[in-house]
Amino acid sequence: MTAAFRIEATLEAAVARAEAHNAPPRLAAAVRHAVFPGGARVRPHLCLAVAEACGDDAPGLADAAAAAIEVLHCASLVHDDLPCFDDAATRRGLPSVHAAFGAPLAVLAGDALIVMAFDTLARAGAATPNRLPQLLTTITRGVGMPGGIVAGQAWESEPHTLVEPYHRAKTGALFVAATMSGAIASGADPAPWRGLGEKLGAAYQVADDLLDAVSAEADCGKPTGRDAALQRPSLVAQLGLKGAYAHLEALVGAAVAAIPPCDGARGLRDLVQMQATRLAPKQLARSAA
Amino acid sequence: MTAAFRIEATLEAAVARAEAHNAPPRLAAAVRHAVFPGGARVRPHLCLAVAEACGDDAPGLADAAAAAIEVLHCASLVHDDLPCFDDAATRRGLPSVHAAFGAPLAVLAGDALIVMAFDTLARAGAATPNRLPQLLTTITRGVGMPGGIVAGQAWESEPHTLVEPYHRAKTGALFVAATMSGAIASGADPAPWRGLGEKLGAAYQVADDLLDAVSAEADCGKPTGRDAALQRPSLVAQLGLKGAYAHLEALVGAAVAAIPPCDGARGLRDLVQMQATRLAPKQLARSAA
Repeated sequence: MTAAFRIEATLEAAVARAEAHNAPPRLAAAVRHAVFPGGARVRPHLCLAVAEACGDDAPGLADAAAAAIEVLHCASLVHDDLPCFDDAATRRGLPSVHAAFGAPLAVLAGDALIVMAFDTLARAGAATPNRLPQLLTTITRGVGMPGGIVAGQAWESEPHTLVEPYHRAKTGALFVAATMSGAIASGADPAPWRGLGEKLGAAYQVADDLLDAVSAEADCGKPTGRDAALQRPSLVAQLGLKGAYAHLEALVGAAVAAIPPCDGARGLRDLVQMQATRLAPKQLARSAA
Repeated sequence: MTAAFRIEATLEAAVARAEAHNAPPRLAAAVRHAVFPGGARVRPHLCLAVAEACGDDAPGLADAAAAAIEVLHCASLVHDDLPCFDDAATRRGLPSVHAAFGAPLAVLAGDALIVMAFDTLARAGAATPNRLPQLLTTITRGVGMPGGIVAGQAWESEPHTLVEPYHRAKTGALFVAATMSGAIASGADPAPWRGLGEKLGAAYQVADDLLDAVSAEADCGKPTGRDAALQRPSLVAQLGLKGAYAHLEALVGAAVAAIPPCDGARGLRDLVQMQATRLAPKQLARSAA
């Protein structure tokens, strides 16, 4: 069974459960729209790759961790796209949830997705409950306060943004949750996997800033040029395009170096390198080649 | 240690954890504003009363369940008050979270509170992990889709509202979660406790409709007359004031009758009767006396 199949099947089961038994039909449609079709599913792939590198002895729990992290990522996108934040009309080349269903259902779909993530973990955790507390707190740390993605988004509403906690929380925290929860789901020590998540998360933040600065909206599937328009802290503003691109390459190298010695190290290196190729805006990769 | 002390201390510890380590200060203030000072804390009192009736052999887990349910209730109030829903400027006699901090931080404070609820459960669950999966799914059922409070709120955005699932989801589901999770936290079978939660939840929905119809805003601490203004399904519209009041009294009686035989039955009956006295709008109680 491929990782992609495991991820999509687990997401489908979670969304189908939410749709059952007299669910409000438009909310159900909004939740499905938020999850399918997905993007690259980078975080759940990373989670499962780490789980496999650690023996994957409880695959149902690893699947749940991967799906929960993806669902929480989807929830953050739905809320970030709201009129009171980015006011984005498109996402992944389709109407954003609020554009298709209105702001009230977008707020509620995000809420429902957050709850769905923890429901998915709880159901899968019944077989190995000893792993559940640490798995849950590792994921709540990546999502909530004081330093998860909710906090990262909130830094944009502060009069004085602390750039480093902002970037770490907005993108890095959920990547750290992805690598560490893959290990925990498989009964392994998560500590050695923190570095990989941190470096990859930082690389994604730089890549996102670069994409926002140089890509056309059509390539990206969502509005671009938002960082400059909204005066958000951006590494492109700080280092320039070439400086930011060099920083991205250095972070991908550091991510590969942070993979702990393990049986699955080669597969993980391939995954990171493949993701890195997808990360860099094509224009920059060409000009650097 | 009184139940009120246990509830406030557990909420304070959860909010303090969220504020730590470089949390965005305005988000932290919004979260605190959403939780303190509280209302009557009806749901956590109910949860702890059931836990005590079932022996309360893991009080830390019961405290966490009670606090998680209250935090989820607070999250739902913060999101319900948003401009795209009720647009309520006040709550519990103070500015609502969006009125005090703006809509973006109100969205994020609600999200952070949902995550905080599950984080609180996970931390307390480490000592008795075998109880954690069922405790979590009982609470997710009361909050998420298809039939929890998020679904209840979403029924207001549907072109055709199914009244019975709407009322059950909007208020009843979290009361059922409160009684059943009190039992689960104490290692008891939660099934006999469903009826009490259902009847009390239904009573609260009727009381809320009555309050909205007859109370002045000053008595209530929040805007009133919203059901009629927003054409929401209401039992007052269906049964009239006197009919709805009689229905409320019948539901409180049914709640008392639904308390399973147990050592703590008398204390629970007192709690339900005391809450019932607080429930009914004073004008109606006087005219019925």
